[in-house]
Amino acid sequence: LPDLPIDPLPLQVLLPWLDLAGLAVFAASGALAAARKRLDFVGACFFALITATGGGTLRDLLIRAPVFWMQAPTPVLLCIGVALAAWAIPLKWWPERALDWLDGAGLAAYAVYGAGKALQYGISPVPAVAAGVITACLGGVIRDITAGVPSILLRHELYVTAALGAATLFVVLTTLGLPAPIPAMLGFLAGFALRGAAILWKITLPAHRGA
Amino acid sequence: LPDLPIDPLPLQVLLPWLDLAGLAVFAASGALAAARKRLDFVGACFFALITATGGGTLRDLLIRAPVFWMQAPTPVLLCIGVALAAWAIPLKWWPERALDWLDGAGLAAYAVYGAGKALQYGISPVPAVAAGVITACLGGVIRDITAGVPSILLRHELYVTAALGAATLFVVLTTLGLPAPIPAMLGFLAGFALRGAAILWKITLPAHRGA
Amino acid sequence: LPDLPIDPLPLQVLLPWLDLAGLAVFAASGALAAARKRLDFVGACFFALITATGGGTLRDLLIRAPVFWMQAPTPVLLCIGVALAAWAIPLKWWPERALDWLDGAGLAAYAVYGAGKALQYGISPVPAVAAGVITACLGGVIRDITAGVPSILLRHELYVTAALGAATLFVVLTTLGLPAPIPAMLGFLAGFALRGAAILWKITLPAHRGA
Repeated sequence: LPDLPIDPLPLQVLLPWLDLAGLAVFAASGALAAARKRLDFVGACFFALITATGGGTLRDLLIRAPVFWMQAPTPVLLCIGVALAAWAIPLKWWPERALDWLDGAGLAAYAVYGAGKALQYGISPVPAVAAGVITACLGGVIRDITAGVPSILLRHELYVTAALGAATLFVVLTTLGLPAPIPAMLGFLAGFALRGAAILWKITLPAHRGA
Repeated sequence: LPDLPIDPLPLQVLLPWLDLAGLAVFAASGALAAARKRLDFVGACFFALITATGGGTLRDLLIRAPVFWMQAPTPVLLCIGVALAAWAIPLKWWPERALDWLDGAGLAAYAVYGAGKALQYGISPVPAVAAGVITACLGGVIRDITAGVPSILLRHELYVTAALGAATLFVVLTTLGLPAPIPAMLGFLAGFALRGAAILWKITLPAHRGA
Repeated sequence: LPDLPIDPLPLQVLLPWLDLAGLAVFAASGALAAARKRLDFVGACFFALITATGGGTLRDLLIRAPVFWMQAPTPVLLCIGVALAAWAIPLKWWPERALDWLDGAGLAAYAVYGAGKALQYGISPVPAVAAGVITACLGGVIRDITAGVPSILLRHELYVTAALGAATLFVVLTTLGLPAPIPAMLGFLAGFALRGAAILWKITLPAHRGA
C-alpha cells in the first residue's frame, strides 16, 4: 500500500489467509452445486476450480497482477482436495442452505481480499471497492450460470450489498489508517453478518416497484 | 496510431467522449434490466457496472492496455449515478423498447471506440475490427445472461451486424487517412442507423434455412 | 520450456498447428450451433469467433502471453472462412453428432496446446494442466451458454475428463523428457479417444449418488 499511512506487512501476512479461506469455501460451494447436478468427481473438481478461481482471476487481470493460481500448485491442489471431500460427503449431511453459508463466507472474504489487493497494486479507493465487489460476486455467478440455475443475483436477497458492505468498510477503515488486521476482520465480519442476516431473516433492501 | 497517416491527437480527444457515452448508455441499459427484474438499487448499480465495464474490460485485456475503469474513479461513479437515476425513473416513463435504443447507441459507440483503441495499441486492422465487434456486443450479452433472459444475439435481429458495420467503416476510413472525427462519427452513425432500422423496421439478413 | 530437458524447437513447430486445428474445429462447432439457432451468416461468424478464441484468450491472459488472435489477421480470417463454409453446408449433410465430434477434436487439441503453452511460459505442471483443461472446455461452455442451450458440462458425459486426460498425459510425458511431438500426439489422441468413446459408447464416470 505505497501511499497509505499503514504498515504494509500485516496486510501482506493476513491477505493470503483470507484468500485461501475464500478459495476453499468457494471450491466447496462449486463442488456442492456439481453434486446436486449429479456430476462425477471430475466435474465436481472442475466446478470447484472455476467457482473458486473465477473471481480472483478477474481481479488479478483488472489490477494487472500475475494470476494467483498460476504461480504455485497450492490453489489448484486445495480446490481439488476440497472438491473431492465435498463430493464424497452425502448431500443430506450438509446443513440446509449449506451452499448459501459457504458462498456467503467466500463472498465476504473475497470482497475484502479483492479490495485489499487492488489497494496494494495502487488502485484508487472507488475502483478498488468496485473490483472487490465484482470479483467477490463473480464466483457464484459463474457457478450458477454454468450449472444452469438462476443466478444468485436475481433471488431478491441481500448479496451484492453484503459484498459492498465488506469492501467499503475495509477500504474506509484502511484509508483512515487503522492497522491492517482490523479493517480486514471488521470488513469480513460485516459482510458475512449482512449475508447471514439475509439467509436467516430474509432482510432485504426495497425492491424496484416494478412499474 | 503509430503507423497510420493521421494526426493521433483528434482521435485521442474524441475517443474518451465516445467511451463515456457508451459507458453511460450501457449503464442505463443494465440498470433498466435490473429494474425489470425488480432488483434493489444496489443490484441495479451492479448490473449497470458489469454491463458497462464488461466489454471495455475485455477490450483492454485483449490489447494489453491498463483496464480503463481501474485508472480513475470517474467510470465507476458515472455508472452508479446513471444506474440510480435509471432505477428511480418509473418504468412506464421509458419509451417502449428504450433498452434496445440505449443498447444500440452503446453498441455503436463501443464498436468504434474498441476498434480505435485497438488501432492505437498497434493491433492490425482485421483483429481490431473483430475486437471492436466482440467488445461492443459483450456488454449486452453479459447483461442478458446474468439477468437470465435470452441473449440479444439470438433474437434474429441485426445486432452483431450493426457493430460490424460501425467498426469496419471506422477502420476502413481511418486507414484511408481521414482525420479521426470523420471515421468515428460516420462509423457510429452507420452502426446506430443499422441498429435503429432493425428496431424500427425489423430489417434482417437472411436467416439460416434451418436444414 | 526453459527448465525442461527437451529441445524446445519441435514443440514450437508443432503447437501452432494444434492451435490452428483447434481453432478451425471450434469455429465450425460455433457456426453449427448458430445455424441450428437459424442465425444469419454474421451471427454464425460471431459465434465461431467467440467459441474458437474464448479458450485461447483466457489461456493467454492466465499465463500473461499476448492474446494470440491480436497478433495477426490469420486466426480471425480462418474463423470467418470456416464459419461461412459451415453455415453454407446444409445441416442434414452433417453427420449425426457432428458438433460433438468437432468439439471433441477441439477439446483435445486445446487441452494439449494450452498446457504446452503454459509450460513454455514457465507455469509449473499442476496449474499448467488446470489451465489446459479450463481453456479447452471454455469454448464449448461459451458457445452453449451464449446459444442458450444447457452447457455440455451438465450432460453427464465424459468431457472435462477427456481434456484432463489429454493435458495430464502431455505434461507427464513432457516432464519425463520425451521429444515434444510424442507427448503432444499421444495427449491429443488420448483425449480424443476418451471423448470419442463417450460419444460412441456413452462411457462415463460414476455420477454423484444424488443424496
